[in-house]
Amino acid sequence: MLETNQEKVRETGVLFFIFGATGDLASRKLFPAIYSLFKEGKLSDKFAVIGLARRERSREQFHEDVLRSIQEFARYKASPDDPEWGRFVEHFEYMSLDINRVEAFNELNIAAERLEEQFGIAGNRLFYLALAPDLFGSVAHNLKAGGLLQTAGWHRLVIEKPFGFDLPSAEKLNKEIREVFEEHEVYRIDHYLGKEMVQNIDVIRFANAFFEPLWNNKYIANIQITLGETVGVEDRGGYYDHSGALRDMGQNHMLQMVAMMAMEPPSRLHPEDIHDEKVKVLRSLRPFTSAEDVRKHVIRGQYTEGQANGRPLPGYRSEDKVNPDSTTETYFAAKVYVDNFRWAGVPFYIRTGKRLPVKTTEVVVEFKNMPKNVYHGRKTGLEPNLLVFRVQPMEGIYIKINAKRPGSEGVIVPVAMDFCQSCQVGLNTPEAYERLLFDAARGDSTYFTRWDEVALAWQYVDQIASAWAEDASDLRMYPAGSWGPEEAQALLEQDGFHWWPVNGQQESEVVWVTNRSE
Amino acid sequence: MLETNQEKVRETGVLFFIFGATGDLASRKLFPAIYSLFKEGKLSDKFAVIGLARRERSREQFHEDVLRSIQEFARYKASPDDPEWGRFVEHFEYMSLDINRVEAFNELNIAAERLEEQFGIAGNRLFYLALAPDLFGSVAHNLKAGGLLQTAGWHRLVIEKPFGFDLPSAEKLNKEIREVFEEHEVYRIDHYLGKEMVQNIDVIRFANAFFEPLWNNKYIANIQITLGETVGVEDRGGYYDHSGALRDMGQNHMLQMVAMMAMEPPSRLHPEDIHDEKVKVLRSLRPFTSAEDVRKHVIRGQYTEGQANGRPLPGYRSEDKVNPDSTTETYFAAKVYVDNFRWAGVPFYIRTGKRLPVKTTEVVVEFKNMPKNVYHGRKTGLEPNLLVFRVQPMEGIYIKINAKRPGSEGVIVPVAMDFCQSCQVGLNTPEAYERLLFDAARGDSTYFTRWDEVALAWQYVDQIASAWAEDASDLRMYPAGSWGPEEAQALLEQDGFHWWPVNGQQESEVVWVTNRSE
Repeated sequence: MLETNQEKVRETGVLFFIFGATGDLASRKLFPAIYSLFKEGKLSDKFAVIGLARRERSREQFHEDVLRSIQEFARYKASPDDPEWGRFVEHFEYMSLDINRVEAFNELNIAAERLEEQFGIAGNRLFYLALAPDLFGSVAHNLKAGGLLQTAGWHRLVIEKPFGFDLPSAEKLNKEIREVFEEHEVYRIDHYLGKEMVQNIDVIRFANAFFEPLWNNKYIANIQITLGETVGVEDRGGYYDHSGALRDMGQNHMLQMVAMMAMEPPSRLHPEDIHDEKVKVLRSLRPFTSAEDVRKHVIRGQYTEGQANGRPLPGYRSEDKVNPDSTTETYFAAKVYVDNFRWAGVPFYIRTGKRLPVKTTEVVVEFKNMPKNVYHGRKTGLEPNLLVFRVQPMEGIYIKINAKRPGSEGVIVPVAMDFCQSCQVGLNTPEAYERLLFDAARGDSTYFTRWDEVALAWQYVDQIASAWAEDASDLRMYPAGSWGPEEAQALLEQDGFHWWPVNGQQESEVVWVTNRSE
Repeated sequence: MLETNQEKVRETGVLFFIFGATGDLASRKLFPAIYSLFKEGKLSDKFAVIGLARRERSREQFHEDVLRSIQEFARYKASPDDPEWGRFVEHFEYMSLDINRVEAFNELNIAAERLEEQFGIAGNRLFYLALAPDLFGSVAHNLKAGGLLQTAGWHRLVIEKPFGFDLPSAEKLNKEIREVFEEHEVYRIDHYLGKEMVQNIDVIRFANAFFEPLWNNKYIANIQITLGETVGVEDRGGYYDHSGALRDMGQNHMLQMVAMMAMEPPSRLHPEDIHDEKVKVLRSLRPFTSAEDVRKHVIRGQYTEGQANGRPLPGYRSEDKVNPDSTTETYFAAKVYVDNFRWAGVPFYIRTGKRLPVKTTEVVVEFKNMPKNVYHGRKTGLEPNLLVFRVQPMEGIYIKINAKRPGSEGVIVPVAMDFCQSCQVGLNTPEAYERLLFDAARGDSTYFTRWDEVALAWQYVDQIASAWAEDASDLRMYPAGSWGPEEAQALLEQDGFHWWPVNGQQESEVVWVTNRSE
């Protein structure tokens, strides 16, 4: 949202260093994103990509990898026969690299300088670490030691989650990175912040006179954030069993969405001002007073055998690389309070889980209902007004209001008003990684997470994790393909609320998307 | 909206007296409405209709008239071969009546008593005067003198506009009626109040927590009410040339819609409480200080030759039964102020006219815009939020908000969220007359106009009419098929506003409905 000159990237160029270039993320997200940016003219000819990994690959093999990745995952078609493809892929080099050898980085620097000269890039270097976090420290160190940060242009480090396992490990990781890079050079990716409708939250809030007057505890009853996955742990059992839903989804994506919804209007729409406001929200999260308090406000679950669409699904403990006695949560739901003037008394309910019936991310704002004894409320069970941000798989905004049923004598029914963003642009909405990679290249950190946000989120999450570590007796089992443990329903029911069906519809009417994952 | 027992009409029955039974209104609206009520079970077998007019008609001829009317205009199909048709039409009688002869009313009473006995009706009599208003007085008088008001049931008088030509004539008319009927027995029809979406205004306002907090001068910039007709004066030239747009549309429909939009929430949704609140609005209309003041706030126009869809259209002064030097307005636009705490400073712009490009009735609520120098406002020309009630020909609600253009870097565009009522029920929305006739039969006067409303509306309109009568130099000509005189645009432009294109679209995209009239 920073008013950055978009031309700058085209004019002064950028050299991407993709660490982990033979991995899944590079092939599914990064190469396709770079291709889209190229196709849309956001990159000029002044760019280059150096793929880096331990494995040996020839330049030709690497070009084939890139082509396959783009043919499979990109929004734009590519054909090796098209002369444009040649113009694109000639910007790609590969180098096998032992990240522990500083000499290898010296060689890398020489290769980088050659590419910069070849393509007229003004020394701007973007280091994308698609690596395990425990390697971040040594890579950062060797980037400096290898002389890669001595160009005239800018140097930015883009890193992926997980950023630590808890606050102490995150602090350690951050310290290592910050020995080499300044905070403003570090771009911590939370790919949910790259999603169209998450970015639309502040536009909806701050570009309409309609919503902001209602955006407080006088009019809002509660906010519900659901991030449902249909997949299980797939081939990430080893990582996941160590991490769990709270660390994998709660600490980052979900608390970030809470912050987007709850933040005060910043003084300007500049990245630092927005980060400042998000930090204020995270700092206002009501702390837990005891392990008992955690158990009262946070429900955790783990999926057992079940089924989806008639297909049998294994239980979590039978998944590959998962401890057969694991007490890791694959689901959690929490009641979160933001203790400030705007939100006092308004619960934020968040839930996420694997093997839920529907793949969906939605933010539901439930407005306070009309008093039951006023007017229509007396006779009819008026439903509260809702404003729904559909993040995925549908993208759009949805409002539910009450209106007269046509032709009826004063019968009032809920009706939906719907703005379907993804219907407008079809499947061609830019991918989150496309936006974020471009934002990093042009120096807009709005939709990345700043260190103090990361630290505060860990501080909050650590309270829950340490209570859970004491005693796993509150872990609830839920069958794969269900909506999680019943206790998650009770969490809202005790406040007189309930989870709204996702996708703006009754569950039975939902088109279940079970075969795609992201 | 009164919690009237709908069963009452079925249980104790009703006898309809249709005065003017051979006229246009009876055939286009009243018979079809009675048929719909019958088909939907809102009338049981305990009902009868006596058609009354001067002309001689046999029972059979009258039944044929009713059949033709229903076949042409009703929502439900009818066939003379269907046994149900026989069961319906046997409730219809016709009587030729000289409304000045009290003896004729004596005979009518005898016929009525016979029908009441035949169909088990408990003496409930609804007198529908589809007559010229100057006959209301003598009909009322003879109803009483002829003994028609001496049954055990209720007696209600339903009358059509125009209710007077100005306040003195309306007062005279009312006095004549009130010599016979109590105010609570008089149902003054304003058929706009029978329209689905006009009735939805108070549901939308009072059954949603979403809108009421915004419903005041802090958040609303202005309210625009457009009632556009594509027709000219057709065969009503004689009446219309005497009346004009202000009296024909302004005094009743448009001021009623202003009152619906502006009224305070009543203490209960009972008819009398709602009428009390509407009266408060009409009493708060800012009076004009002089004829000059009228001319500043009210624009009048008259159509000249023009064309629509390539078809040439005559000027008003060439229409049948219109004075060739007529200064009667066929268009007016006014800036109306409701001087109370809620609406201080919020203009209500109302306009209506004949031979406009589109047949439409719409109420647009324009919310105050974001300050131009806040956030997005600085770069982009943010459009204000709108809430639109589409009354006809489309029925629905429409909200315009600002959102991010998908895939853009912070480009904000207005997007529409639409709840199309008429799309849901197709063409089968009940007609206004159907609702109103049933409401009168069950004693719910919510959507009729009370005498004090009529009187206050005349008082307001008379100020304009008398300024106009002094001097016609401000009458502006506009070509048939255009949006009226340019001065009506300037009326808003001087406040920094403009008329929003009707039908929620740019005019060029509007589907123009020119061949239907109501």
